[in-house]
Formats: sequence, C-alpha cells, structure tokens
Amino acid sequence: MPFTPAVAEQRFVLEHVAGIADLGVDGDILDAVLEGAGEFAAGEWAPLDRIGDTVGPKWTADGVVMPEGFSDAYKAYVAGGWGTIGSPEAYGGQGMPFVLAAAVLETLGTANMGFALAPTLTVGAIEALLHHGTPEQQALYLPKLSTGEWTGTMNLTEPQAGSDVGALRSRATPRGDGTFSIQGTKIFISFGDHDMADNIVHLVLARTPDAPAGTKGLSLFLVPKYRLDADGNPGEANDVRTVSIEHKMGLHASPTCVLSFGDHNECIGELIGGEYGGIRAMFTMMNNARLNVGLQGVQVAEAATQRAIAYARDRVQSPRASAPGAGPVAIVEHPDVRRMLLRMKAQTMAARALVYLACGQVDRAQAGDAEAKARLDLLTPLAKAHGTDLGNEVASLGVQVHGGMGYIEETGAAQHFRDARITPIYEGTNGIQAADLVGRKLGLDNGGVFQRLVAEMKGEVQDAGLRDLIAACEAVARHLSVSDPDDRLAASYPFLTMLSVAVCGWLMEKQGRIAEGGETPFLKMKAATARFFVAQIVPEALGLQAAAMAKADALYAVDAETLAA
Amino acid sequence: MPFTPAVAEQRFVLEHVAGIADLGVDGDILDAVLEGAGEFAAGEWAPLDRIGDTVGPKWTADGVVMPEGFSDAYKAYVAGGWGTIGSPEAYGGQGMPFVLAAAVLETLGTANMGFALAPTLTVGAIEALLHHGTPEQQALYLPKLSTGEWTGTMNLTEPQAGSDVGALRSRATPRGDGTFSIQGTKIFISFGDHDMADNIVHLVLARTPDAPAGTKGLSLFLVPKYRLDADGNPGEANDVRTVSIEHKMGLHASPTCVLSFGDHNECIGELIGGEYGGIRAMFTMMNNARLNVGLQGVQVAEAATQRAIAYARDRVQSPRASAPGAGPVAIVEHPDVRRMLLRMKAQTMAARALVYLACGQVDRAQAGDAEAKARLDLLTPLAKAHGTDLGNEVASLGVQVHGGMGYIEETGAAQHFRDARITPIYEGTNGIQAADLVGRKLGLDNGGVFQRLVAEMKGEVQDAGLRDLIAACEAVARHLSVSDPDDRLAASYPFLTMLSVAVCGWLMEKQGRIAEGGETPFLKMKAATARFFVAQIVPEALGLQAAAMAKADALYAVDAETLAA
Repeated sequence: MPFTPAVAEQRFVLEHVAGIADLGVDGDILDAVLEGAGEFAAGEWAPLDRIGDTVGPKWTADGVVMPEGFSDAYKAYVAGGWGTIGSPEAYGGQGMPFVLAAAVLETLGTANMGFALAPTLTVGAIEALLHHGTPEQQALYLPKLSTGEWTGTMNLTEPQAGSDVGALRSRATPRGDGTFSIQGTKIFISFGDHDMADNIVHLVLARTPDAPAGTKGLSLFLVPKYRLDADGNPGEANDVRTVSIEHKMGLHASPTCVLSFGDHNECIGELIGGEYGGIRAMFTMMNNARLNVGLQGVQVAEAATQRAIAYARDRVQSPRASAPGAGPVAIVEHPDVRRMLLRMKAQTMAARALVYLACGQVDRAQAGDAEAKARLDLLTPLAKAHGTDLGNEVASLGVQVHGGMGYIEETGAAQHFRDARITPIYEGTNGIQAADLVGRKLGLDNGGVFQRLVAEMKGEVQDAGLRDLIAACEAVARHLSVSDPDDRLAASYPFLTMLSVAVCGWLMEKQGRIAEGGETPFLKMKAATARFFVAQIVPEALGLQAAAMAKADALYAVDAETLAA
Repeated sequence: MPFTPAVAEQRFVLEHVAGIADLGVDGDILDAVLEGAGEFAAGEWAPLDRIGDTVGPKWTADGVVMPEGFSDAYKAYVAGGWGTIGSPEAYGGQGMPFVLAAAVLETLGTANMGFALAPTLTVGAIEALLHHGTPEQQALYLPKLSTGEWTGTMNLTEPQAGSDVGALRSRATPRGDGTFSIQGTKIFISFGDHDMADNIVHLVLARTPDAPAGTKGLSLFLVPKYRLDADGNPGEANDVRTVSIEHKMGLHASPTCVLSFGDHNECIGELIGGEYGGIRAMFTMMNNARLNVGLQGVQVAEAATQRAIAYARDRVQSPRASAPGAGPVAIVEHPDVRRMLLRMKAQTMAARALVYLACGQVDRAQAGDAEAKARLDLLTPLAKAHGTDLGNEVASLGVQVHGGMGYIEETGAAQHFRDARITPIYEGTNGIQAADLVGRKLGLDNGGVFQRLVAEMKGEVQDAGLRDLIAACEAVARHLSVSDPDDRLAASYPFLTMLSVAVCGWLMEKQGRIAEGGETPFLKMKAATARFFVAQIVPEALGLQAAAMAKADALYAVDAETLAA
C-alpha cells in the first residue's frame, strides 16, 4: 500500500496536544525519531502487511512459525533500536517519553498492525517488571525486553474467565525454592509463541494454594519460554506448550495462542509483585496497554484513510453533478466521497489527539504530577474505547470509498476493516471501559478530576455546539453521580462517546486555531479538517444525551427469555 | 447456528406495516407460507451457511462448482415451490404479493445469506422480462425463472464502469436474424455461474453499433448460458466464459464472477425492451433488487441478533454490579450487554418495517395505485441504504456481544459482519442512494410525495422527540430544495439517515401502540423494543441536522492533493 508516515501530523499533535517540549524532547530529536521510524516502517514492515494477512503464522509441533520475512524485519527493528525509544535508560533504553514511543509504535502499526502487536505486548511486560519486579528480575529481564531481543506476553484469559478475570483457575504451587510450579491453560495470548526472538517472557495470572476466590486471590508470575541459565541466557525449555493458534477474522499477522503451562509439571515461574499482588500488577500492564490499543485505532484509521484517499484520487467515475457537461472526474471530487474522506481524516486526527493527550499524562505522572495521573486515569477508558471505535468507523468508510473493489481482498481496504474489529474487544471490552468510566473514573476525587477537565475545556472552547456538548456532558455526569449502579451502567456507553467527542472537539478546535491561516498544505488541511469536525461531528454526540440520561428500566422491561421472542 | 424463523414478527409487520390483508392474503395462507418457509430454511439452507463461508464455490475450467449440499438444497427450494411465491400466475407462479415473497426471501437469507442471493437475482430477471420482454421471450423464459429451475443474473458493471454505468463498453452487433452478437467483459456478477440449475439467464447491458455515448445508448440483452433448442430446452453452450471468481471478504457462498461474453464471437443475445431501452429496463430490475438488498440488511441483522442473544443467555461472566454479592450471571443480565441486544432487536425491527413498507408499495403500485408508486420511489433509497446500514451496525454489535469469541471465525458472528459489508455497496452504493433521494426523489411531484409522507407521519406520531425529528427533516428538505447540486449532495447522506430514522420511528411507534398491553412474550418484547427505539435511537438522528444543513464549501476547503497532506 502507499504508506506515508504521518510525520507532520504526529509532530503537530505531539507539540500542541501532548506538549512534548515540556517533556524534554527538542525539535531535532523529535524530527529524527519520527522520520527515522517512518522510513524504517515503510521500508521494512509495510511490505509484510499483506503476507501477514494472507499467509499468517503457522502452528507446528515445534512452535509457531512466522511468515517469511517477519523474523528478519523484527531483528531489524531490534537492531535499529526502535524498541528502546521509551525504555528506561538504566536498562539500555533511550528513556524518551512514553508519548513519543507511542508515536513510533503508531507508525509501525500503520505499516503493519498485526506485527506491531509484538512490541505492544512487550511494553506491558516491561511496565510490570519496572513497577513490581525485584532488582534481580529487573536486571535479568529488562535489558533484553527493552531492546526487544525478548518479547513479552500477557496471560490473563481462560475459557471461563474473560472479562471476569477473578474466575480464573490457573494454579501456582510453591516448589520450596522460592519459585512456583505453574499449571493451567490460557487463551487469546497474542504472540504467545513465534520464532522472531530468542526468548518470550510470559506474565501469567494464577492462583496460589489457599488463595481467596476472585481477583483478590490472584498473583502474577513471570514464566520464560526458556529458563535462564547461570549467565542469564535462554537455556532449557520451560514446559510451556502452544496448543493451537486461533482462526481469527483479522490481525492475522499476530499469532493468537492457546498456551498450556505445566503439562509435565515442569513449568517454573517466579512471583512478580508479591502474593495476591496480581491484580495490581495486571493493571500496571493493562493501563498502558489500553492506551496502546486505543493507539491501534489510530493506526488502522491512518492506514485506511491513506489508502482511501489514494484510491479516490485515482479512480475516475462520472462527471460532477454540478458540471454534467464536463468529463468524468476522480471520485474524490464527488461531494459524498469527499465527505467520507474528510470524515476519515477528521476522525483519525481526533483519535490521535485523544490518545496522545492520554499518553502525555503518562509521562507527567511518571514525573510525579498527581493531577496528570488522575487525568490519565479518567482519559484511559476514553482513549481505549473511543480510539478503537473510531478506528472501526474509519476502516468501514475506507471500504465504502472503494465501492465494489473494497470488498475484494486483494484491494487491501477489507483487511483494515477485519483487523480493526478486535480492538474494541481486547484489553477490556469497550463496554468494560464504559463501566470503568462511570463506575470508578467519574468519581475520582469526588468528581473533581472530571470537573477540572471540564473547566479547562470550557475555558478554551469557542464553538457554540461544542459548548453545548460539554454542558450536556456535565449534566449527564451530575445525573449519573446520583444514579444507582444499573442506571449508571445502562447510560455508560452513550456517555463515554459524548465525553470522548467533547474532548476530541476541544482538541480539534484548539489545533484548528493554531493551524488557521497557515501556509503549508498540512496546515491548510489541518484547519479545514478541524472546522469540519467541530461543525459536523460534534453535534452528532448531542444526539446521545437521551440515551445517557435514560434509566436501566428500559433495558429490563422484558426478561432475557422474552427478549428472544 | 440456532436459527429460528422470525414468524411472529414477520406476520406482525406484514399485517400492521405492509397491510397484507388489503393485498388479498388471508391469515391462514400467511401462516402457512411463513411457517413453511421457516421450516424449509431451517432444515435445508441454514445447515449450509458455514460450508458456504468456509469452502465456498470453486472455479474450474468447466464452470463454477458450488460446495457440497448446495445443489440439492437448491433443487429442494425449487421443488418446494419457494421460488414461485411472488411469481406471476400466468407463468406457473403463485402470484402472491411481492412483500410476502420478500418475507420468504428474508427467511432464506437469514438462514444463509449468500445462498439467498441466487433467488434474489432471479427476481430481477423476472421483472425485466415481465415488463420489457416480448410475449415469445416471456413464454420461453418466465416459466423456468418463476420456479427457479433457471436462475437469473444482472450484468452491468465493467472495470471502468461501476457507479457510472454510462461508461460501459460491451458491444452488441446485429447478426442479421434479429439476434445480436455480444462481446465484452462484465465483473461482479453474482451467481454468474454455478451448477445448481439447468440454465442461467444473463441480462446484459451493452452498446449497439453507433449507439450514443452514456446511459442513453445502452440496450439490454438476454443471453442464456445455454441457447434454447427448438423445444425451449437448454442446448448448445453460448460462448459465455467464467474467467474467474473473486476473493471477497464475505458472502462467500455467492460466486462473484468475471464473465467474458463472445470470446469466440459466438455469444448470441436477444434484445429486451428495444434498442436504447437498456437504462429503463435496468431500473426495472434494479429498483426491486434495491429493496431486496435492503432486505439483506434485515436478513443479516436477524441472524446476528439471534446468535448474539443465544450466546449472551448462555455465557456466564461476573455478578451484576447492582448485586455484587450474588453469583455470576449470564451476560445478557449486564446492563451494557442488554443495551446492545435491545439495540440489535430494535434496529432489526426498524429495518424490517422500513423495507416491508416499501415492498408493500410495490404491490399497491402494481395494482394501479399511483401514489403508492410515487411513495415507493421515495422509499426505495431509504430501504436500500438505511436497511443495509442497519444490517452492518447490528452485525458489528453481534461481534461485540461475543467478546473475544466474536473474533474467532468458528463462532459465526464474524461471518455476519463480513457478509453484511457488501450490502451498502452493491445495487448502487448507499452514497448513490442518497444522491437519488436528494437529486430525484425529494422533488417528485414538486416535493408533494415527500410532503404527503411527512403529513401522514405527523398525523400519527405522538412522541415529542419523534415530532422534532420529523420537523427537522422538513426543515432540511426545504433547505435542500433551494440548494445547488453540490450542497444537496454534500448533505445527502446525513439527510437520508435522518429521514430513514424518522420513518422507522413512525413505524416503530405505531407497532408499539398496537403491541402495548399484549400478553404474549412476542407482544411484550415488541412493545418494549419500540419504546426503546423511540426513546433512545430517534434522538440520535437529530444530531445529524447540522451536517444535513451544511454547505459543500466545507468539503472543498482544500483540494484533493492537499487533503492527502
């Protein structure tokens, strides 16, 4: 595909939304990183996007084999240092801001979304070890994870325990030497096995003997694919078996594994973060992973948009209705196609702004800014859920712009549509994100975190429709603050969307103000797209207010059996 | 899948929306047809849905081979008389209303959407012959098409001529005996070849020598796969070659063919409807086909909804937030899952009501009701575009309800999502439908057709939000009536959605009034779903008014090259 790294846009959002200058990255470094990542992704990863989809990884008795080219391209990623951008300097990383690492990850994922899931999961493993590992564990594992020489996985889900992780049954039995014997089956493990790296570091939620039921009895274990020898190098295999890989609708480049731990009772794991510290450690992994999944929405939206614009500029069909006598024109000139493309642009930018805003809070929170930490908590469900919803909307529009060709696999638009569809599901379904928003995040600091965000938005926004939407969000939030749990949950998704669009509208309007009057093509496009977003997309979200104010009664008017009538 | 024919709902909508009693079908016949079709579809077609998707038709040098079971199941459909429901009695059909035939087709398509495309296309061929064929052509072809012993195809698209059929180049040269020699390549021909029927009747748009450019120079030709012998039976092959079948994202059961006509200059066709009568005959085929594509939205929505409800009632995960002490419950009991399911139910019903309303006008129009004909013209783009948009929305929600399992192909939810995605594209993209609405249909009878529909709705609706939406549609329509073509087209899609939701809201509210207080599970569910639609879905459409009133300027603020910046 005609992949062009979105460097100008990334830099603009990093500067004006994420405030990268305050995070110690100067303009030259910023340019070097963004352009270098773009060049690498375009040259090495984008060409493998199609083979990843059509051939995909293969299960063998000896492990999962990636399609031709992936192993070399992964090693090139490691050699180029692209995994180290955000990794801690103490462990060989470059220690640059999380939000800049996110921009690099976005570029990789725009080039090859399924492939980019490998580094995405590794980031989660690094976070867990950084915050909950012992110094020995950190010294042994972090240098290799930081470079990407080893990759990481998150092992939460079991067949009976999806959204309800508290229901999981995998067991960890003390072996008497401080290590544990791990037994259990985990499903939906992205990059649970592959042949691109020397080792794979599985982080596994399991239950110690006599652990209490539910989430509070969970502990997290580090389970390497190969146990480390005395020199810290991968040695003996650790009794982790890949039972199968799933036949998924999309994201084929990513092997989704069923892993069986301890078939021969010889799977050795180490505790991370103390007994019963599993859920806390899981959220450490998960929260940043949620931002990176929101970022996948940006990745797929950017890829779909670039492809659709290229097609629409190339495909000639019919004269314009306003000039029937003239010859046929490229379909980009037809108003409704133009509308779809501008919407794709606008929603992609909105998703990027929302996700980068949240990622920037990670860096501020790490530097000790408590309000940034609180705002990050509030923004995380929005970035994950709305970012992925937008990725799906844009990918679908991308198919539509292509007409009949969009439905033909060889065109490539369909792959984005299929790839995108998992993102509202994994790392906590978007429904779980909405529940998190209304159940926990809205009430942070007695609502103060939300109120301060709203106050900041109100202090800046100028468009009347956007002001109305923000006011509607306040009204819904007030209403929800005195609602019972069922009513809150019934309203959670419409409210999440309203608030997300309000935040996106605020950020788009702000960027538009900066871009307005600019002379470069990018600035002209940015200003036009921001105006379109505020004028045409923001008002749609006001239409959700009725649902966000409705009570759960409406949903339970008939019971489940009657619903099926 | 757990397919249950939606007989109670179909009967309710046929009675209260389509007014089937006025169309000469009594209750006993109605029951017999709906229940019989349901039993047949569940028994014979639903079991082939998965093999149709996973194996699909295969191209061979001797023609397209359908997966195992399809040929027998198709013959059972013919033998059962299911193709004859709406076919004319003069040609062996049962002459029942088009809207009842649509309900039967819906049931077949809910059981197996790709398979049901074969009869869908045959309906178009019957319509074209009925309205434009000579008595000889009718006598030779209609009896076999009516039963489904032979199937029909529509051959419009060429690589350079998609939405712009006027750009097509296929040629038809007089052979001196009244027949024509056909040459050209057609793409995207659904069921262009298969092994289920004794003959295939291709209706082919082509250009006679010296024909004027554009659509006005098009003529329609009947090109049988096998020429008829003196007894009217399929004889010699007619030089129509299946070059390949497409590798599509979904609807795999339907072979999408590239057909080459006249490679050896021996493809013989007959003119249908006179020279240069092609575009008129095409619209005859196409208009009812558009309704039947809208109906595919209903098909896939019904299938996705049934599957999601069954899964949600079975899958146990987490206690309810409002009763944390109680045990885990089926996910159907969680508010946000319930919201998704009720939305799926409501949108499926809305799509069905809209499509049946339009189909009922076909019957009234055939009986000579000019106002019904005009209303049909107005409703056709809504039924096609909004019906298919809803099918896509519902199929996507169906994936979401399944969580991670929804992304695994074996679950089946993903197939609906993939199958649905073509429907907003073919038979005129939904953008083309929107253009048709604002460019031609809104202005019918100087706006009188639209105004009389609005007046009827206003006379019946009670909900304040629904009244607001109808008023907004009027305001937009007034605005568009004095807008220039670009502005009308820029606003066309948002307006199409607003008006469609208004019509659906009117029909849902009306049905809710009838169902309210009913004692059966179906009536209780119907009433609850109607209330939900009016209270929560109708207000969303008001959010589109800003876009529907916006001018095209916003879309052309930057040129196509700058848009790519």
